[in-house]
Amino acid sequence: MRIDIITVLPELIRSPFEASILKRAIEKGLVEVHFHNLRDYTTNKQKSVDDYQFGGGAGMVMSIQPIDDCISKLKSERKYDEVIYMTPDGETLNQGIANGMSLLKNIIILCGHYKGVDQRVRDNFVTREISIGDYVLSGGELGAAVLCDSIIRLIPGVLSNETSALTDSFQDNLLSPPIYTRPADYKGWKVPEILLSGNFPKIEEWREQKAYEHTKNRRPDLLDE
Amino acid sequence: MRIDIITVLPELIRSPFEASILKRAIEKGLVEVHFHNLRDYTTNKQKSVDDYQFGGGAGMVMSIQPIDDCISKLKSERKYDEVIYMTPDGETLNQGIANGMSLLKNIIILCGHYKGVDQRVRDNFVTREISIGDYVLSGGELGAAVLCDSIIRLIPGVLSNETSALTDSFQDNLLSPPIYTRPADYKGWKVPEILLSGNFPKIEEWREQKAYEHTKNRRPDLLDE
Repeated sequence: MRIDIITVLPELIRSPFEASILKRAIEKGLVEVHFHNLRDYTTNKQKSVDDYQFGGGAGMVMSIQPIDDCISKLKSERKYDEVIYMTPDGETLNQGIANGMSLLKNIIILCGHYKGVDQRVRDNFVTREISIGDYVLSGGELGAAVLCDSIIRLIPGVLSNETSALTDSFQDNLLSPPIYTRPADYKGWKVPEILLSGNFPKIEEWREQKAYEHTKNRRPDLLDE
Repeated sequence: MRIDIITVLPELIRSPFEASILKRAIEKGLVEVHFHNLRDYTTNKQKSVDDYQFGGGAGMVMSIQPIDDCISKLKSERKYDEVIYMTPDGETLNQGIANGMSLLKNIIILCGHYKGVDQRVRDNFVTREISIGDYVLSGGELGAAVLCDSIIRLIPGVLSNETSALTDSFQDNLLSPPIYTRPADYKGWKVPEILLSGNFPKIEEWREQKAYEHTKNRRPDLLDE
């Protein structure tokens, strides 16, 4: 899989890709991530990537020209499955969307900043708009990092069997049951005895029950799906 | 405001705080962000911060001891309003929660990793559990960065009036109307004439209408709230 991230702030988004699971996925050659600085594509003298909005109002708008040039260059080099725009008014990311996107070959992710991009970019270049949740962030960069993380960890070979994504929350519409590790007694706080029993069928039953109860308490909406 | 972030991967989460709005907020002294590496708090020889789970099963669990020691040290130094644990089964972050949290003075954010933390940490130290959305990430670090960004940009003085958060999506349960900037005609794609008219009351009316239509099409659930 190849991911091209277009941003005015490549330095903001680098560190999540230089550590842990994303780093290893890149090193193993399971995914390529390329950052493109929009400023490298401006044709005006000031190297500006934004401008005041037509009709007045607070906040700058990202101009169409550098975005057009960057996307057009990438598209001339290979075929892309999606051009994704990160925006709070996009489709809300969930595990199903992440599962689907993990099967794609080449995607472009455009990070909004300031008040967002010129609407003509959305109308003419963007094929899918994604939000990571109902809150506003300084820019699309953190959203892009979140989207990439949610997708990349699902690519076969990225996680070991040990950490298999299949037992994660949401994959079966149930939240995870409580988990414990050593010591069995920490300052008087004890691990439930069943987990120390060695009776694995009973432990499995306990976990299913706890996962169901936890989901019913916290997220009954997941049980309806 | 002071934010203490407890993580096993401080290097993963650094760059978002070293650029743009978060950087400026820190430089202006409007917020302090401190990273704490859990490995500095382990008392075992191997410096391990995780262990196998009781009862068997895939995935490692973050141990209680280093987390207890780190949180206890911080609490001995000052009073905290919340100890927040980032977890996919927590309360889903939204703009209302971000607004509320932006008023707090001192918070601790604990990032989960691997399969999560020992349940006794959640039962005894954590006061609030937050999820940034219904998807699974490699760890809580990106979630913590997202939570911090959503909060910090709301602290008075962080954004200029220019970029005021008050006109953002979600603050009035409406998505933003389309925005445009120069040129008025780009390769034949034109800006709506009303925006070039100079008739500001009419422009305001058009924007309200577009924001309402856009919200009705994309997120009718927001209009019900």
